Amino acid sequence: MNLPDDKILLPKSALPAAWINVLPDLPEPLAPYLGRDRQPVDPSALAAIFPPALIEQELSGQRLVPIPEPVLEALAMWRPTPLIRARRLEKALGVSSRIYYKDESVSPSGSHKSNTAMAQAYFNRAAGVKRLSTETGAGQWGTALAFAARHFGLDVRVYMVKVSLEQKPYRKVIMNLLGAEVLASPSQLTEAGRRVLAAEPNALGTLGLAISEAVEEAAGRPDTNYSLGSVLNHVLLHQTVIGQEVDKQLAMVGEKPDFLVACHGGGSNFGGLAIPYVAKLLAGEKIRVIAAEPESCPTLTAGQFGYDVGDVAGLTPLMPMFSLGAGFQPPAIHAGGLRYHGASPIVSSLLKSGLIEAEAVSAEEAFNYAKMMAFSEYVVPAPESSHAVAVACRKALELEQAGRPGCLVFTLSGHGLLDLAAYQTA
Amino acid sequence: MNLPDDKILLPKSALPAAWINVLPDLPEPLAPYLGRDRQPVDPSALAAIFPPALIEQELSGQRLVPIPEPVLEALAMWRPTPLIRARRLEKALGVSSRIYYKDESVSPSGSHKSNTAMAQAYFNRAAGVKRLSTETGAGQWGTALAFAARHFGLDVRVYMVKVSLEQKPYRKVIMNLLGAEVLASPSQLTEAGRRVLAAEPNALGTLGLAISEAVEEAAGRPDTNYSLGSVLNHVLLHQTVIGQEVDKQLAMVGEKPDFLVACHGGGSNFGGLAIPYVAKLLAGEKIRVIAAEPESCPTLTAGQFGYDVGDVAGLTPLMPMFSLGAGFQPPAIHAGGLRYHGASPIVSSLLKSGLIEAEAVSAEEAFNYAKMMAFSEYVVPAPESSHAVAVACRKALELEQAGRPGCLVFTLSGHGLLDLAAYQTA
Repeated sequence: MNLPDDKILLPKSALPAAWINVLPDLPEPLAPYLGRDRQPVDPSALAAIFPPALIEQELSGQRLVPIPEPVLEALAMWRPTPLIRARRLEKALGVSSRIYYKDESVSPSGSHKSNTAMAQAYFNRAAGVKRLSTETGAGQWGTALAFAARHFGLDVRVYMVKVSLEQKPYRKVIMNLLGAEVLASPSQLTEAGRRVLAAEPNALGTLGLAISEAVEEAAGRPDTNYSLGSVLNHVLLHQTVIGQEVDKQLAMVGEKPDFLVACHGGGSNFGGLAIPYVAKLLAGEKIRVIAAEPESCPTLTAGQFGYDVGDVAGLTPLMPMFSLGAGFQPPAIHAGGLRYHGASPIVSSLLKSGLIEAEAVSAEEAFNYAKMMAFSEYVVPAPESSHAVAVACRKALELEQAGRPGCLVFTLSGHGLLDLAAYQTA
Repeated sequence: MNLPDDKILLPKSALPAAWINVLPDLPEPLAPYLGRDRQPVDPSALAAIFPPALIEQELSGQRLVPIPEPVLEALAMWRPTPLIRARRLEKALGVSSRIYYKDESVSPSGSHKSNTAMAQAYFNRAAGVKRLSTETGAGQWGTALAFAARHFGLDVRVYMVKVSLEQKPYRKVIMNLLGAEVLASPSQLTEAGRRVLAAEPNALGTLGLAISEAVEEAAGRPDTNYSLGSVLNHVLLHQTVIGQEVDKQLAMVGEKPDFLVACHGGGSNFGGLAIPYVAKLLAGEKIRVIAAEPESCPTLTAGQFGYDVGDVAGLTPLMPMFSLGAGFQPPAIHAGGLRYHGASPIVSSLLKSGLIEAEAVSAEEAFNYAKMMAFSEYVVPAPESSHAVAVACRKALELEQAGRPGCLVFTLSGHGLLDLAAYQTA
């Protein structure tokens, strides 16, 4: 009996022992974060909302940051995640390229967000913090932080973008089951929320505003720190377990990738896949690394590079990044996790330097390829991940037309089992 | 680095090579199925709706039935499933017993139903059948059959109990993504459905009625066979991969079970865990094997043993089983998969012979323990599985009070990610 095994699995012992910090290897050093006075922010100013370890990671020059044992033990609950050869998807597309997907949906919270959630909950707990505030768009991040906070014994309040909460009421149910408190943003609890509601009582909410609310709360309460699911350097750092595992898994089957594709909202999922490959890109290896973003929120493909704030109220520092403007109101697409006006400074820098690329995908194209994936691979992608499915399929078809089949890898950042309403209307 | 590993994993090579047929080992042989004339049914009468291989399995005297290679390859997509030590649940309960759960939720359809769905789709396809009709309660079975039918290239129509379809609209979305057609039962398509709708236009539907509709369709269309997700001998046969794997996994960690617990609706999940242990029970090993059923549909704890039909319209043969009566209308509990008036003849026989036990659980108790499981193990059980969680926890607490900690195993028959509305109101 020769059982086919399209799942490339690593043993627990192959869990990466360190995170990869790309800051020392960026072609151009990152410009500093600026305060409202446009002077570089002193790291100590961040101490009101972040624990010391995360501030250190945010600015670190160390290439490898060891993963503390309690975080490794937590990650080992579901990592290493499988890399899966999508043979049936290849067949459905009619291509002779090899398509692999990294299945981050197997985490208990259903997405890659658990990787940084565990690290952030741990470092906050280790610093004696008892309570976290955060925001969430589609709910993946809020669920992940609720899970990690529960695991390390912290309380958490989640400001969830109102339109997403209405689209996905069951995300709140899960966060509540894990002990987290969930509020619709804009809320009446913060100055930032009240201001928006006064101007527009039916505001749909945005990630940028929900961030303002969560930051405002953390800055105003000594018992509470703030936790962010994307954009910042330390968040991308924690996600580098993804690309490190992919690299080992491809080696196990003798593959070298021609394309690496991940969806892009704030940059954590994309950065997690891309950063471990930066050294190879700098060494001249021919790998095309593509960020897949929604046409309706085209930060990387249509945004401007420059300094912008990360939230609507301007409570965050100014960051050097691609942005559509902090006031940009994306339409209420189902890929709520991609409805963000900015891009992480690291991803922005990689894009500016030409090491990576970005492509925009319409909601229709994303859902069409996601449906093909569900029909062939029996996996329902999260609406966010569907953008990566689409770009990977596009590229496989382009390779086929050019008569040059290759190896494509994309990240399935999460499953869509809590997003089925999107498929109902798609 | 000593990474704790509470997941007991088997290699693909440990997939069971055969199903275990308990028929030759039942303390009393099963009484035959009877027709409306109360005469034993001739197996050939079943050929209108079942393929020959499944009819043979239904009546087989062979102790081990080899699993065909294409079915093994399909099962290998997600099997062997993990057996997980629920250490955090033990801690939450405050018990020193060891609690393990067999995680059948990892199948692509999210429940144990995929095990028999793959086998049934395969044997139908091998017999040249192109189309299946079936019923589904909560949607687990319909999803599993949609998945398996898609995999083996069959069309499928699913009659879904109306109240469950309304509670869980997203189940239909998934079945549609997999290419299946889904109708609310009672429907206007069948005589059985029309009769009920004429009498009660707002009928909630029951599994028993949905079976009538699916059987009526298959009996009336030469291109269509019928597929059942529980009750019948061949269905329980296909589920014996569960208990066989559990037995190997417990041996890997040097455990012998004191309690085996599974929820019980028609008997497929319970039978799958229990049947591989019957030989040990007959040999006198002291293992308590308990079927957990809902108080509101107490087939095993309050039903009568005797001949009854499996559906409302009386289209199935009379079967020797515990039953609440084919006309029994269970309330619209969320554990839709347990809303069935009968019990499989095999489970009924095991209960009558005293080899196994049954306990009823209130919806409130089931949800309370399910919430404890979500909060401690970060896994949301299906409402059906919650009944097994509850009985396992009950027994662990009883052992603790008696000062005799032991080893308890329950089946997590499915995840509750598509049942979160139940948790919202629970």
